[in-house]
Amino acid sequence: MSKVAIIGAGLVGATTAHTLALRGSCEEIVLLDVDQDKAQAQAADVAAAATLNRGVRVYSGTYAQVRGADVVVLAAGLRQKGGLSRTELITSNTLIFREVMPQVLEAAPQAVILVATQPVDPMTEYVYRLLEGRDVSGVLGVGTVLETMQLRAAVAAHLGISPEHVHGYVVGEEGDSALVVWSNLNVAGLPVAEFAEQRGVPWTTRDQAAITDRVQRSNRRVVEGKGAISYGVGAAITRVVEAILRDAQIVLTVSARSLEYGVSLSLPRIVGAKGVVETLDLPYSREERFKLEVLVNSLKNILDR
Amino acid sequence: MSKVAIIGAGLVGATTAHTLALRGSCEEIVLLDVDQDKAQAQAADVAAAATLNRGVRVYSGTYAQVRGADVVVLAAGLRQKGGLSRTELITSNTLIFREVMPQVLEAAPQAVILVATQPVDPMTEYVYRLLEGRDVSGVLGVGTVLETMQLRAAVAAHLGISPEHVHGYVVGEEGDSALVVWSNLNVAGLPVAEFAEQRGVPWTTRDQAAITDRVQRSNRRVVEGKGAISYGVGAAITRVVEAILRDAQIVLTVSARSLEYGVSLSLPRIVGAKGVVETLDLPYSREERFKLEVLVNSLKNILDR
Amino acid sequence: MSKVAIIGAGLVGATTAHTLALRGSCEEIVLLDVDQDKAQAQAADVAAAATLNRGVRVYSGTYAQVRGADVVVLAAGLRQKGGLSRTELITSNTLIFREVMPQVLEAAPQAVILVATQPVDPMTEYVYRLLEGRDVSGVLGVGTVLETMQLRAAVAAHLGISPEHVHGYVVGEEGDSALVVWSNLNVAGLPVAEFAEQRGVPWTTRDQAAITDRVQRSNRRVVEGKGAISYGVGAAITRVVEAILRDAQIVLTVSARSLEYGVSLSLPRIVGAKGVVETLDLPYSREERFKLEVLVNSLKNILDR
Amino acid sequence: MSKVAIIGAGLVGATTAHTLALRGSCEEIVLLDVDQDKAQAQAADVAAAATLNRGVRVYSGTYAQVRGADVVVLAAGLRQKGGLSRTELITSNTLIFREVMPQVLEAAPQAVILVATQPVDPMTEYVYRLLEGRDVSGVLGVGTVLETMQLRAAVAAHLGISPEHVHGYVVGEEGDSALVVWSNLNVAGLPVAEFAEQRGVPWTTRDQAAITDRVQRSNRRVVEGKGAISYGVGAAITRVVEAILRDAQIVLTVSARSLEYGVSLSLPRIVGAKGVVETLDLPYSREERFKLEVLVNSLKNILDR
Repeated sequence: MSKVAIIGAGLVGATTAHTLALRGSCEEIVLLDVDQDKAQAQAADVAAAATLNRGVRVYSGTYAQVRGADVVVLAAGLRQKGGLSRTELITSNTLIFREVMPQVLEAAPQAVILVATQPVDPMTEYVYRLLEGRDVSGVLGVGTVLETMQLRAAVAAHLGISPEHVHGYVVGEEGDSALVVWSNLNVAGLPVAEFAEQRGVPWTTRDQAAITDRVQRSNRRVVEGKGAISYGVGAAITRVVEAILRDAQIVLTVSARSLEYGVSLSLPRIVGAKGVVETLDLPYSREERFKLEVLVNSLKNILDR
Repeated sequence: MSKVAIIGAGLVGATTAHTLALRGSCEEIVLLDVDQDKAQAQAADVAAAATLNRGVRVYSGTYAQVRGADVVVLAAGLRQKGGLSRTELITSNTLIFREVMPQVLEAAPQAVILVATQPVDPMTEYVYRLLEGRDVSGVLGVGTVLETMQLRAAVAAHLGISPEHVHGYVVGEEGDSALVVWSNLNVAGLPVAEFAEQRGVPWTTRDQAAITDRVQRSNRRVVEGKGAISYGVGAAITRVVEAILRDAQIVLTVSARSLEYGVSLSLPRIVGAKGVVETLDLPYSREERFKLEVLVNSLKNILDR
Repeated sequence: MSKVAIIGAGLVGATTAHTLALRGSCEEIVLLDVDQDKAQAQAADVAAAATLNRGVRVYSGTYAQVRGADVVVLAAGLRQKGGLSRTELITSNTLIFREVMPQVLEAAPQAVILVATQPVDPMTEYVYRLLEGRDVSGVLGVGTVLETMQLRAAVAAHLGISPEHVHGYVVGEEGDSALVVWSNLNVAGLPVAEFAEQRGVPWTTRDQAAITDRVQRSNRRVVEGKGAISYGVGAAITRVVEAILRDAQIVLTVSARSLEYGVSLSLPRIVGAKGVVETLDLPYSREERFKLEVLVNSLKNILDR
Repeated sequence: MSKVAIIGAGLVGATTAHTLALRGSCEEIVLLDVDQDKAQAQAADVAAAATLNRGVRVYSGTYAQVRGADVVVLAAGLRQKGGLSRTELITSNTLIFREVMPQVLEAAPQAVILVATQPVDPMTEYVYRLLEGRDVSGVLGVGTVLETMQLRAAVAAHLGISPEHVHGYVVGEEGDSALVVWSNLNVAGLPVAEFAEQRGVPWTTRDQAAITDRVQRSNRRVVEGKGAISYGVGAAITRVVEAILRDAQIVLTVSARSLEYGVSLSLPRIVGAKGVVETLDLPYSREERFKLEVLVNSLKNILDR
């Protein structure tokens, strides 16, 4: 009997609840929001849809109901939208986390904490700093999981193969500066260029650049077209939640504290019941490693401000 | 290889696409909207989530892509919101349908047409009138399917039993004036009062009234709390779409033209591959039949204006 | 994280494991058998199939591995086959149960016990007697669950409607003397004859008799044709196991001790996490009640011998 | 509306029908057997289980009912069992195929033909020869699909990671002489030894040999323990059938005619709606290529006799 608590009943929180409920990923979902009416309405709406499947229990509540949660998804806070700078976004959302975290820790000290509030990598780092001194393997962010899913779909579509055979990662930071690790991408056990040749499909540096571009911009384009991204993010969060609940030992590019880099960023990591089990060290090319370091510095600067 | 076309990529249309994709209800979904950027963004967002399951193809397009659809969901039009009267809503949405319908009929003359635009019962009647002279068994509206789902969930929660054993219907018109057919409700083969007694649970006229109230107001309450209803409606539409695609012969309180009442309203109907197979005539109580007739008159008046 | 233990790795035990694994009904399945090589082979074979779904863990073991099971399915013992009288079957299987039960109770004292060994109703009664003095709400047999499923399918096929709308029960004892409760059967909320008329399908006493006959003989016919029944029984057991694991409050015609009749037999009962929650008392016709009493006497006689 | 026909209602044919029905992989399944009573009993048994899911139609029939099938699974023939030599098995099963194939081709000339009769690689080659002159991309055998599944599960269990991240293939011929392509195996994008080191798990040539041994013998061990292998084979066949029905472009080590080797054997191939789309040429080590050639000669010799 597994239970997920979602803090923040906005679009991302509610879509996550909806996705979990339709998939029957857990038995119970509790939604919290400072706007309790909204949390209640979202829960009622999701609960109505949950009857399609085997009737996951969905309800709104207070921190008392977070008790017993196996995973707590942090989806509270503002979203990146016109007018708000990245720094302002971080400032505002850290204030919210400062209030939320003590209550989460008191209600569900054993739960894995999954950060979905934007910008995910800095916010994950912030939770890490709030927890100073504690064991933090159970803190992770949804990171570039969606970007990795999009990379696989884009490469698969280009090559005419199912995405399950595309093994590749998008690391670093979500969004525009996400880093596609082309040097390590393989398809059905072959390097991508080799696979393309056997499949009789062209594979040029322009194809590669076009896919990189698509992956980096896809979320922004969705936001421009419909005002927000929701289903994709909900799906990415669901992937991580299911990996935790099923102790699945799945490799996901979640965000977490990196010992090597001294900051939280997205890298391929094995995820199980207790959160991050292991971080994989890919054989990055020199250029990729350089880009990663630039990104790490930028992330550190942001948080030190 | 089944295909669903959704006209209107607003909240209801997109949520329907998301629900169908997560459930793998069909192989292809095409989204259309006058705002093509929005349709494209919604399709991309749903497509990202679709990879969680077995990769239903989701894309946006024009009426040319509607070709070959088994079901066309009409979700275009304005939604009931503050400031707009019911009559204004109907006027505005009939104008949209007048433009949409000829293109739908040309692209997919064999498809079942499922109306999800509010207010559903009058809009279904309007489609019926647009089709004058044609066979209309393949035209239906989502009607009170969601209200019936909510009735079953509410009764089941009260009685401590799974909703699958609650057999009852909400008929008439969606929303506040929806009619719960209490006279015919049975639970696991027993009349509800008898079941409640065996289960050792109280069942008074006040309990019954409270549930009626909850069913009639639930959608409105969700709208008040979160600004719109989406997941529940998407689930109800999905139930109907699946019944059609699987030729499931399931009883659903869809809206359709009633020969008896001379207008389109929601009644329990068997739904299969070609739409409505049969309308069931329940043994309504005198009071229920009276309320139905009042409703029929009101529906007729609305459309004659 | 739910766990099911299956005692007896013959056809019924293994098919149950296979069905649970393909449906992902639980996280862990342990198979036991006096023939440990067979248990191991069955577990390995099911485990290979389990990778199709989300990888339920399936393994063979000893009573030590039964520890922590939420449900223990008793599928050990001989099956009804040519040459063996019913009394001999019971004698033989009670000897097996006398050995098995103390070990089950020691390993998993909290588990719900589900009897699937034939003949189910007498064997359930036997477990009840072995447990003298204990709480026995957590002891049930798969009873006439399969027969009820077959009744619904047969009536649904005749009437051209989905089986989910056929509410009816087969009670008493599994197999040839199973009792179809025609007096209480309803379809989509209408009495069956009324529904048939509205649907324009004939419904005569001959139709009814033919379906009764088909329900009572279906299992025997399958046994004659292929040597044993397996998939249907596995499905019925799975229905009961899922109702327990999900605390689903589903009505199933499981076998259990009846206070009224003083013996274990199959009646419609609400099944939840702890086993039987409630037994429903249907408004049986006089003829049905008489047949039930005849059956009760026969069951009592069998066990007293 | 997809349809699968299964020729041969023995253990493998029936288990395949059961697996397809529980997964809802298609809408219709028809079972054929020279023993029509057996086919009918198997179909009835599977149909009872199919009600657990969304009610796939399962029935037995004659070649007239094979009409319209998208896939025809050939599961007729004897199985490898004590007393029968491999040559005798082939002789006997080719006689059966000589009778079956013309009827299959007449009833469903467009269907993809999937060979599941043992020994699969020679029997696939035999079908190829029977079809002389026709297009044969739609003829394939289940080959080493199960062995590949077992390889991934075994490596995953050893390394503590989900099988979805193990990319490796078992090629050549099913059973004892199946060839594990260790040179090309990667885990989450890393060579297996590298991954093991990062994961902190030992990986020696002895580990590798033990897994090779387990993969080659696993089916035989199951047969020794329970008399036959069924669930694993049914799962492997289901993987191939689903890849065809969903046009999934999945890489599976199915058996098919190799232009390079001039005989049918199992190699990694992309499978879609029309059968084999492409055969992948792995960078085999010299030793692996040598073993493959030995195998090819042995396969050719068998069939020329």
